[in-house]
Amino acid sequence: MPKYVYAFGGGGAEGRSDQKELLGGKGAGLAEMSGLGLPVPPGFTITTEVCKVYHREGQAFPAGFELELTEQLARLEGLQNRKFGDRRDPLLVSVRSGGPVSMPGMMDTVLNLGVNGETAEGMIEAGMDARFVWDCYRRLLAMYGDVVLEVPHAGFERILVERRTEEGVATDSEISAAGLREVTRRYLDYIRENGRVFPQDPMEQLYGAVKAVVESWNNRRAREYRRIHGLPEDSGTGVNVQAMVFGNRGEECATGVAFTRDPSTGEKRIYGEYLVNAQGEDVVAGTRTPQPVLDKDGSALLGRVFPEAYSDLVAVCEKLEQHRGDMQDVEFTIEDGKLYMLQTRDGKRTGLAAVRIGADMVAEGLIDHAEALKRVEAEQLVQMLAPVFDRAEKEEAIADGRLLARGLAAGPGAASGKIALSAERAASMALEGPVLLVREETSPEDIVGMHASAGILTSRGGMTSHAAVVARGLGKPCIVGAGDLVVDEEAAQVRVDGRVFAEGEDLSMDGSEGQVIAGRLEPRESEVLAAVLEEREVDSQSVSAFRKIVSWADDERRMKVRANADTPHDARVARALGAEGIGLCRTEHMFFEEERIPWVRRLILARSEEERSQALARLLPVQQDDFEGIFEAMDGLPVTVRLLDPPLHEFLPHGERALAEMAVEMGTEPADVAAVADSLAEFNPMLGNRGCRLGLTTPGLYEMQVEAITRAVAKLSLAGHDPRPEIMVPLVGASGEMEVLRERAVEVVKRVQQETGTDLHIPIGTMIEIPRAALIADRIAAHADFFSFGTNDLTQMAYGYSRDDSGRFLPHYVENGILPFDPFEKLDQVGVGQLVAMACERGRQARADLKMGVCGEHGGEPESIGFFDRCGLDYVSCSPYRVPIARLASARATLGHG
Amino acid sequence: MPKYVYAFGGGGAEGRSDQKELLGGKGAGLAEMSGLGLPVPPGFTITTEVCKVYHREGQAFPAGFELELTEQLARLEGLQNRKFGDRRDPLLVSVRSGGPVSMPGMMDTVLNLGVNGETAEGMIEAGMDARFVWDCYRRLLAMYGDVVLEVPHAGFERILVERRTEEGVATDSEISAAGLREVTRRYLDYIRENGRVFPQDPMEQLYGAVKAVVESWNNRRAREYRRIHGLPEDSGTGVNVQAMVFGNRGEECATGVAFTRDPSTGEKRIYGEYLVNAQGEDVVAGTRTPQPVLDKDGSALLGRVFPEAYSDLVAVCEKLEQHRGDMQDVEFTIEDGKLYMLQTRDGKRTGLAAVRIGADMVAEGLIDHAEALKRVEAEQLVQMLAPVFDRAEKEEAIADGRLLARGLAAGPGAASGKIALSAERAASMALEGPVLLVREETSPEDIVGMHASAGILTSRGGMTSHAAVVARGLGKPCIVGAGDLVVDEEAAQVRVDGRVFAEGEDLSMDGSEGQVIAGRLEPRESEVLAAVLEEREVDSQSVSAFRKIVSWADDERRMKVRANADTPHDARVARALGAEGIGLCRTEHMFFEEERIPWVRRLILARSEEERSQALARLLPVQQDDFEGIFEAMDGLPVTVRLLDPPLHEFLPHGERALAEMAVEMGTEPADVAAVADSLAEFNPMLGNRGCRLGLTTPGLYEMQVEAITRAVAKLSLAGHDPRPEIMVPLVGASGEMEVLRERAVEVVKRVQQETGTDLHIPIGTMIEIPRAALIADRIAAHADFFSFGTNDLTQMAYGYSRDDSGRFLPHYVENGILPFDPFEKLDQVGVGQLVAMACERGRQARADLKMGVCGEHGGEPESIGFFDRCGLDYVSCSPYRVPIARLASARATLGHG
Repeated sequence: MPKYVYAFGGGGAEGRSDQKELLGGKGAGLAEMSGLGLPVPPGFTITTEVCKVYHREGQAFPAGFELELTEQLARLEGLQNRKFGDRRDPLLVSVRSGGPVSMPGMMDTVLNLGVNGETAEGMIEAGMDARFVWDCYRRLLAMYGDVVLEVPHAGFERILVERRTEEGVATDSEISAAGLREVTRRYLDYIRENGRVFPQDPMEQLYGAVKAVVESWNNRRAREYRRIHGLPEDSGTGVNVQAMVFGNRGEECATGVAFTRDPSTGEKRIYGEYLVNAQGEDVVAGTRTPQPVLDKDGSALLGRVFPEAYSDLVAVCEKLEQHRGDMQDVEFTIEDGKLYMLQTRDGKRTGLAAVRIGADMVAEGLIDHAEALKRVEAEQLVQMLAPVFDRAEKEEAIADGRLLARGLAAGPGAASGKIALSAERAASMALEGPVLLVREETSPEDIVGMHASAGILTSRGGMTSHAAVVARGLGKPCIVGAGDLVVDEEAAQVRVDGRVFAEGEDLSMDGSEGQVIAGRLEPRESEVLAAVLEEREVDSQSVSAFRKIVSWADDERRMKVRANADTPHDARVARALGAEGIGLCRTEHMFFEEERIPWVRRLILARSEEERSQALARLLPVQQDDFEGIFEAMDGLPVTVRLLDPPLHEFLPHGERALAEMAVEMGTEPADVAAVADSLAEFNPMLGNRGCRLGLTTPGLYEMQVEAITRAVAKLSLAGHDPRPEIMVPLVGASGEMEVLRERAVEVVKRVQQETGTDLHIPIGTMIEIPRAALIADRIAAHADFFSFGTNDLTQMAYGYSRDDSGRFLPHYVENGILPFDPFEKLDQVGVGQLVAMACERGRQARADLKMGVCGEHGGEPESIGFFDRCGLDYVSCSPYRVPIARLASARATLGHG
Repeated sequence: MPKYVYAFGGGGAEGRSDQKELLGGKGAGLAEMSGLGLPVPPGFTITTEVCKVYHREGQAFPAGFELELTEQLARLEGLQNRKFGDRRDPLLVSVRSGGPVSMPGMMDTVLNLGVNGETAEGMIEAGMDARFVWDCYRRLLAMYGDVVLEVPHAGFERILVERRTEEGVATDSEISAAGLREVTRRYLDYIRENGRVFPQDPMEQLYGAVKAVVESWNNRRAREYRRIHGLPEDSGTGVNVQAMVFGNRGEECATGVAFTRDPSTGEKRIYGEYLVNAQGEDVVAGTRTPQPVLDKDGSALLGRVFPEAYSDLVAVCEKLEQHRGDMQDVEFTIEDGKLYMLQTRDGKRTGLAAVRIGADMVAEGLIDHAEALKRVEAEQLVQMLAPVFDRAEKEEAIADGRLLARGLAAGPGAASGKIALSAERAASMALEGPVLLVREETSPEDIVGMHASAGILTSRGGMTSHAAVVARGLGKPCIVGAGDLVVDEEAAQVRVDGRVFAEGEDLSMDGSEGQVIAGRLEPRESEVLAAVLEEREVDSQSVSAFRKIVSWADDERRMKVRANADTPHDARVARALGAEGIGLCRTEHMFFEEERIPWVRRLILARSEEERSQALARLLPVQQDDFEGIFEAMDGLPVTVRLLDPPLHEFLPHGERALAEMAVEMGTEPADVAAVADSLAEFNPMLGNRGCRLGLTTPGLYEMQVEAITRAVAKLSLAGHDPRPEIMVPLVGASGEMEVLRERAVEVVKRVQQETGTDLHIPIGTMIEIPRAALIADRIAAHADFFSFGTNDLTQMAYGYSRDDSGRFLPHYVENGILPFDPFEKLDQVGVGQLVAMACERGRQARADLKMGVCGEHGGEPESIGFFDRCGLDYVSCSPYRVPIARLASARATLGHG
């Protein structure tokens, strides 16, 4: 029979820190701390296996489990020298969930189990502080009532508020002992009014709580969280039963949470908060604003009040970091001045902190480069590169009195947008533009809305509140505890200092500095980005840590990283950010520039071969100029130029009047122009005459582009430069397309070579973006030097979704779990990925030296990059600002964390 | 060393009739006839291997070939007792091409090789008729000049016309001997003016001709023909060198062609044409209108003039049919009253003839059922089912003087449309509607235009002219030799009897009766179709042959055949034509009917749950009615009902004004209606909110449809009927879509079952029409009872072609060989077929009892049906009128001819 319950504390532990799958993260942490001899109240962990069996077997605990539980409880009673359910000096325990992966706020906790009306009286008789005893009991009733008995939480809150009003006090900790006793009485009535009964029998309490935790694994919020984060459905949760230590037993007691380093900046100093005379849930719930462990100047506030506990905490943090090799997020309680550790886990952190901690820990000798890279999720770099407000502009706004409030800087980065006061509104408003979600506090129900928002702002809660934790996970700018804001969801307005902001009005927020500002400031680029772009040495820990991490990533990664860039400026930005080439240089924007568009239009309207040739002849030199600029910026690095892709009607103005004006400009009849525009209109332009289809049906167009590329190369080569263009044919779906266009291009290249007396090597390849192209990749490879996967179009056609139109069903699909994620954001490995893998395999079979890369937007998305690495692509190409992310993601993929 | 040259004639043959690949069709036929002891002038066949080597080795004959040729020529000289190049009595030979597959008009022929100025004089000196000698020489010069020396053909024609004028005669055969001698002189000058020299040396002539034939394998026309007909590029052509017999040696001589049965109707009688005092090319070229072998009443015209030769021909035909077991197409020459056979091959025939001949030959004991099925290409049935004009209407038109001309009924079926006078115009005009191609005569350059036309009409030529042969191959209505028509391509008009029809005006043609009629008659259904639909016994060989063939097909085939039908009427038609179920019943047309569309629009415009429910409630009973009608018509057979597929905006009227009118009708504001219409507009509707996406995002819609289906089934079942519906979800691309919609449908079915007290089994399945669905077919199969391949959409998305928009590039692609065919007409097995095969395999792996079919238009296309059979589909579904074709194609697939 498997072992279902593992003891910890009292001088050791049955479990081990590497048994996270079995014990859950919390259980493994408790086992580890116990093993290290740290001050952990003893207890035991019910394994995740129990949870799995429970759900598998139709809500029943496995055989033998109850016996083990009884034995472990007896052991605990022995260690604590107290009996569970004893009338005068009972053992009280907490019950907490803890799965292999932390799911903040998803699972439930019950404290103070073992109290009932009789033991409460008995404990007071035995000399315990009455206020403390009733506080424990009322907390138990509220938590148990809410979590186990499913009685609405709001009623408990209401009763507490009533009592505060009756006693004329502001906080719960000021309510008198008698008042708390009265509260317990009203709680019991309230539970009864809801048709439920609070079990007075402590064992029944314990089983009820364990069961509730196990069942909560399967509640809607938990399932939704797992779905959104792609967590497995069948890993189960552990349950930790632990002897209570009390942070609410008077002024010598406290409860707190701490990070061993600053989770926002990564700075090496304890970053925590505590509340005197409180229990753990008070800190996390954000209902009272806690004290910082260290003051702003770095002096130990906690140390002044609890010197011994503080120095123990410092030692514990140091020891845990040494042992775990990572920044820790711990929960502690101080009972009568003595420190107890309740939890440790690897701390969540901002991207900035992740990078800084990774770099620092390498310097401290705690970890090696590979481990540092493993620690930083590639997506976290976004936060370091995330926009900030222009300082002067912001200061001016503040000087103008637009600073509305300050809160805790819980997630770095600047954001502005229309405010939404509910998650639902945020999700729907986000379809139209950036949204800031403004709430009193957030809860797990708000996940989807938080996802959709550009920034998150709450009026309550601390750095460890739900909003702060989730926002950091999502990499969103976040401010919590901005207490001056009155968030009135019902009236759909936010009030602050006499000013009123209706839902839909603009606000701005600086998540790095905790400032809420009226109106809209436009975010600008980050310090790191500025330094990297300008190739400046700056005295900044962040910049230097960033540089270290990406340079280590460059040492590790197998795949090259290129950027998608259409202009010399973008090419220079990309190069500064580490791009090793241009993977996609679109030529259409060149056609749109003001002095060119008339010639493009003349080309479209040409009625004779002569008119067409004339237009092409005018476009040739300007295209050549464009290419020279880009090739020069990327001298010595490959530049993949895509021949014209969009349908011709995109180059005509819209509307009858604009067309008529154009006709005048062109010296033609409006009717002729209208006829051409009509003839070019398409029912489904995405599936129409564009890409190489256009190249094949428009005489001279691609030839002109190839000539412009070749002439640019010839000129630069003769001038001693090293241009390395690659010509890419878009939208190939039949090998004949590639065959014909390749022949034509080769002919042009040859001609230009002869004319210029140069000897140029210009690879000619294709996009793989049509499903059929992937299916017949072997045939296409016969005519192509390289493949570049256009996963945007490939996704559109494989799913049959027009990206422009999918807004009407795709959000519904993702919200309702019909799709696990938006396949335009993250590559659908299950379906579209098959096409990519198939094309790689078949392409390479046909041509062993085929170069392969990706230039769809997925080329900058870390999980997708991992997939591309496994497919054996040679490079990924992404937007310039995502190049550092791709460099890191690619390295992580090589290291097996893709 | 391989043998390159095979002798035939003179009492036997070195080759065999089954060596078509090596000897070509013509060579194999000559060998066969020689082996049977038929009167074949002796000669030899140069193998296809020589042609292959010639092109592979850079235009060089293989080693050893020349020696073999010389030996064979010597043998021939011995047999004929004449020397090649002898001054007075030379051996003359013909050189003709012949590949493994006949390519009419593609390859070239040269007759009378061996004549030159000197031998001509010598032959006359030796007593040969001077007129005959100069006729042979001038023919050789013209053919050789055109084919080998590439001197423009028109010049030879011009010189001949000149001479006719000078002598004041109407036909070439009336030109005097001196005149023909003058013609040869002018021909030689003309050739010299073109910078070429006619080789006087007979051996040089022979090599030149052989080379020209071999080279013509690779000319543009030949390549185009092979591309269009999907023939292999590397099979090569044979070359036949044969001793000349002369049909142009006076009035005792003739040349002719014949089919052993009527190639139009299949009737068992010799069907042929001959020309007295002419050479073979005169008949085929259509420049003189030949005499029929049999008169209309069946009496032997040929027999009256050449009684011995005629009775030999009858015997030869009988013997060849007995030996080959198929209708033959022969060429013969009569020299001095004696019959010589020059060629035999399986004859091309109309669909009508193919069916009739197949059925007759089974009755005659020549072949068995399977062989008969192998003989009839499924597509040929189209011709039997092809439209005819209403007899009364046509007679009235004729009585009104609208009969413009009569010609030879070269391809059965009625057609009408705008006339086009060039193949290019036909191809482009065909994009707008049906076109009749009207030409003096057609040539291989016209293939694409003939493809595009509804019917083909020529003013010259006979039943074996290019136009007639090609039209029969294409299954197009065709009339040739309508000599009253003056086709003036330059003036872009057709003149007849003083009337003028400009290009673009309407004409009608009855290809079964050879009538050309002014204006537009609308074609109606065929005799066979009428008989089958009305289930009438009629005294018609065609109808009875048709019934035999399709019933034999039913005995053989593995796959079921269903029809796509949306109405009880269509369902009844389908059933009469042999459909074993409905594979696709679309529900959208039901929404469009006049009394319903207002409620559909109310549904779309609904602003509240209540309005929406009300609209759905009104639609429910009418949908139920529709389903009852169809289920009743198909009682006992499966009916696959597809839930609503098109996007909602299709149900709104187009244009501002129509929308405003609708608003008035609906009692809403025009602005509201416009806003809804705007919000529903899509950039790419094909990839937008339609199919199951609409089902998932429009509450109640699919539930209403499922309820209507279920209620219809319940009602009919209770009334003792046997309705067998299958519910089909369109456009599934994610397994979650199917999972959710299946659950919802099952719920509705359960509810209706309970309410009606019935126990219904309604399978629920899905279309596979999104590429991703094919890739994840195993996951989808977990929630589907059946798959139905929607190969139209699958083709659209796999290629990224919008069918509505592809007209701008797809014809260009097919014309230029970028694609071998239009993938919307014929399934692309190479690409799209992979998705079908993959989905079949994965679907069946996940669910062994998964039923699979196809309901795209490819379900009625014979080659595609062959592929579906190999994939293991259970059925194909096609338009009702193609059901017989699908039945036959499916049988042919089972027999290995798919």
